[in-house]
Amino acid sequence: MPRLYMALVHYPVVNRKGEVIASALTNLDLHDIARAAKTFGVQAYFVVTPLDDQRIFAGRIVAHWTTGPGAELVPDRRRALELVRVTGSIEEVIDAIAGIEGERPLVVATCARPQPAAIDCAALRATVAGGRPCLLVFGTAWGLAPEAIAGADRVLLPIAGAADYNHLAVRSAAAIVLDRLLGERN
Amino acid sequence: MPRLYMALVHYPVVNRKGEVIASALTNLDLHDIARAAKTFGVQAYFVVTPLDDQRIFAGRIVAHWTTGPGAELVPDRRRALELVRVTGSIEEVIDAIAGIEGERPLVVATCARPQPAAIDCAALRATVAGGRPCLLVFGTAWGLAPEAIAGADRVLLPIAGAADYNHLAVRSAAAIVLDRLLGERN
Repeated sequence: MPRLYMALVHYPVVNRKGEVIASALTNLDLHDIARAAKTFGVQAYFVVTPLDDQRIFAGRIVAHWTTGPGAELVPDRRRALELVRVTGSIEEVIDAIAGIEGERPLVVATCARPQPAAIDCAALRATVAGGRPCLLVFGTAWGLAPEAIAGADRVLLPIAGAADYNHLAVRSAAAIVLDRLLGERN
Repeated sequence: MPRLYMALVHYPVVNRKGEVIASALTNLDLHDIARAAKTFGVQAYFVVTPLDDQRIFAGRIVAHWTTGPGAELVPDRRRALELVRVTGSIEEVIDAIAGIEGERPLVVATCARPQPAAIDCAALRATVAGGRPCLLVFGTAWGLAPEAIAGADRVLLPIAGAADYNHLAVRSAAAIVLDRLLGERN
């Protein structure tokens, strides 16, 4: 199994004006990204927010589908949402992975804007295949704040589609990146 | 530009028990898939439902973001949702594309379960690159009904991830397939 982990960050991210904010959780971000993570064999999916009420809300959604009525109704959803770990900060995520893996993961930020010295998915695919623990970090709202990008070890190149439009939902971007890193080419 | 079109079908699809149903529209299906379609240069994104109230609902969402308050607030969202065409049946979609392209598109169904004689994304990528008009058909709920799959010219192989889990959200599956068909490998 790949030693790949994911984080969906709600703070620090930027809003439309570029201001650093804490964004609100979205139910479908939990579901869609957990299902994609399970599909591609990701080890754990960390949902990061420093806000207590948002962590309680996330915990309630996860409990509904993993131990509550949803678990029996849709077992496939249970298996996906069991990957979710609700966490207060990116640093806590890194510590949790280090605790599991016995070493600090390579932290790879994603960004829709090109960053200096970004790496491509093929390079990261090789790193993951080589067995190194990696943490893939996605931002909600208008993306990760500059401090979160600066704190990463690497930044992934943006997903390139048609020339002039680059506004994928984070749910879509996460699915595409997982496919590029772990999908079988059929 | 690729002559690729997409349809998201709400009827005929199956529910958890395999019964043929008309599913309800989901707001984020419109947004996420329209944004992915725009990112990868898809010509139009057809939302298919035979239910009048659902077509009115879809039209209202699209109008909000293309000509209403949302258009000015988030112009990037306007550009994506301008791709949406609300349509009553798959046949109407095919007729509409034939009207635009002057020829019937190759109709390619998608399905999470392996189908006989399914084609892979690499083959379809070559067909699209060769300039043939193609319609990619996605099902909501538990997927396209057998009659919709049987009516297609081709069926795409399921997306393969880790061995035993195959329950991507349609929004995630659509994003991955578009990337495989049209994305630049970077």
